[in-house]
Amino acid sequence: MLSEESTADKATATEPFHVKSYAALDAVSGLSPWELVRRAPGPHDVQIAIRYCGVCHTDIHFVRNDWGISMYPLVPGHEIVGVVTHAGDQVTRFKEGDTVGVGCLVDSCRSCDNCHNGLEQYCLNGMVLTYSWYERDGKTITYGGYSGQIVVNEDFVVRVPDSLPLEKVAPLLCAGITTYSPFRKWGIGKGNKVGVVGLGGLGHMAVKFAASFGTEVTVLSTSPSKEEDARRLGAHNFVYSRDEGQTQKLAGYFDYIIDTVATAHDYNLYLNMLKTDGTLICLGVPAVPIAVGAFPLLFQRRNVAGSIIGGIEETQEMLDYCAEHGITADVEVIDIKDINRAYERMEKSDVKYRFVIDLATL
Amino acid sequence: MLSEESTADKATATEPFHVKSYAALDAVSGLSPWELVRRAPGPHDVQIAIRYCGVCHTDIHFVRNDWGISMYPLVPGHEIVGVVTHAGDQVTRFKEGDTVGVGCLVDSCRSCDNCHNGLEQYCLNGMVLTYSWYERDGKTITYGGYSGQIVVNEDFVVRVPDSLPLEKVAPLLCAGITTYSPFRKWGIGKGNKVGVVGLGGLGHMAVKFAASFGTEVTVLSTSPSKEEDARRLGAHNFVYSRDEGQTQKLAGYFDYIIDTVATAHDYNLYLNMLKTDGTLICLGVPAVPIAVGAFPLLFQRRNVAGSIIGGIEETQEMLDYCAEHGITADVEVIDIKDINRAYERMEKSDVKYRFVIDLATL
Repeated sequence: MLSEESTADKATATEPFHVKSYAALDAVSGLSPWELVRRAPGPHDVQIAIRYCGVCHTDIHFVRNDWGISMYPLVPGHEIVGVVTHAGDQVTRFKEGDTVGVGCLVDSCRSCDNCHNGLEQYCLNGMVLTYSWYERDGKTITYGGYSGQIVVNEDFVVRVPDSLPLEKVAPLLCAGITTYSPFRKWGIGKGNKVGVVGLGGLGHMAVKFAASFGTEVTVLSTSPSKEEDARRLGAHNFVYSRDEGQTQKLAGYFDYIIDTVATAHDYNLYLNMLKTDGTLICLGVPAVPIAVGAFPLLFQRRNVAGSIIGGIEETQEMLDYCAEHGITADVEVIDIKDINRAYERMEKSDVKYRFVIDLATL
Repeated sequence: MLSEESTADKATATEPFHVKSYAALDAVSGLSPWELVRRAPGPHDVQIAIRYCGVCHTDIHFVRNDWGISMYPLVPGHEIVGVVTHAGDQVTRFKEGDTVGVGCLVDSCRSCDNCHNGLEQYCLNGMVLTYSWYERDGKTITYGGYSGQIVVNEDFVVRVPDSLPLEKVAPLLCAGITTYSPFRKWGIGKGNKVGVVGLGGLGHMAVKFAASFGTEVTVLSTSPSKEEDARRLGAHNFVYSRDEGQTQKLAGYFDYIIDTVATAHDYNLYLNMLKTDGTLICLGVPAVPIAVGAFPLLFQRRNVAGSIIGGIEETQEMLDYCAEHGITADVEVIDIKDINRAYERMEKSDVKYRFVIDLATL
């Protein structure tokens, strides 16, 4: 027997239970109300009443099956913040009432070298994504944060510092950690010149972190109108990336370029802007492979690297860093009924800089 | 007045002088005898009687103007070994009779950060290549080692250890340093699993260095017939790279892959063989850009990097390392009259593993 979702936040489910959500039923119809079933929390699980969920560009890719791996009905959402309503009796790190977050991962094998090294996002036996993925049992499909509640093993839950406004924290769980992690991995900081390609959900966080870590930040954007915002977010320079006169002046300028663009674009333009031994760090996932020229790569010993999100421990570190430095996302809070309209606006880059769903509107 | 080349090795030119050579007069006619003019050695120059010159794939690219930057008449050759016949009066490091080498560079600005850091190959104001390039004066064209003599500033000349057979040393000046440098730059050594793509001039040197540095070496080749040679050169494993069954087993296997192939090929096949944080090091210069997929790059935080040759100090270090460890190239010595036939054979990968011109045949 399934308990009713109307028993709401305070419920301690002992059976699988219904939860309201918004789902895509196929690749073309957009999102609409749907009722999903969550597992009863086990001894290591926490049950979370979701307060806010950020809207990531990846959600659109999945809803539309751009990468050919979507499973329907599909409930997106992996920038989740909420409140613990129940902690299983073996849970040690959380208790009822705690404010917590869940990002892109809800499980991993926990036994491979990467899991042992805090790199669950590169789990060699297959991480479990928060939605449209199989649980470790190989058959249960995961559903994300466009929903009222979620049940997650405590090892994949992070603490949200009380000092931060909750709706602005949600995007940190994906956009935040995705842009924070490269600064730690590559040791980017004071003295470095950093370019940020694209000023969207990821890009605006990259600018905030780059400024916070003491680098000289330049935003490279195809939208000249974003200059004022770029500077407000912490950028020292702004370059309209379609102006050859401006981009050619940047040849050999940057130590690192953080490329947040998820559509097909020219990597070589940015490679040429790197110093000797500089690195182009790609965080976006264009659906098609991108051509890399041997000349810009070899002749200054440059690098093209990729990176996704971060491990659980690093995600906690990032949230704590954000609390300490007062860093959050710039968001526009929306009613879940407006989610399809929000997707349309995102495709036109018409959002500053992240939509966040208020789940109270569900 | 030009002195005659027939004054030969012992000549101390005080005027520009004629030297026999083989040159390409255009992109389609191949190489034929030609007489070039060398500058009279200045106070910082050494005059070198060339004994041997290796034949690099780059020579073919230049002769045929594959990269659109060739200047004719074009005298190729940048794997030069010979004997000093004259040292200018300010020369401090060489004297008549010394055995020396000249590689891909004969000058650089000497004032930029890279030049100061021993990275003349990445000179920010433009290195001077040994052939088909402009000297620092912006008008004098350089001519390479398919010739009887060369005049080079001593700062771009390296000592050749006496213990090594000279004809087998010549290819170290390009193929050797190109493959040695990445081991130093990326700290590749004991405990690393290294793949070498392509078993040609560069590849066979990469295998020798990889084995010498204590790595586990796997040759990835499209020529199954090269297995025995690969093992003789030091490889522990050999994989036929067109056998999907074999290549799929290598997913996530290597720490580094050294890709020596200079024609269009699939980087993603090799990216997928890298561990988390692994690096594909590209040493070949395909004429067309190569498509890199975001998935293999991002989802294990992999890198694609490029590298060319090495600085002058590192080239000397490499030669000394080779002397200490008895490393030289496997060569087939040819008469310069057979150079066009040699190019044809190289294009069919029919050389083990480097042609070297005996300049006594000039």
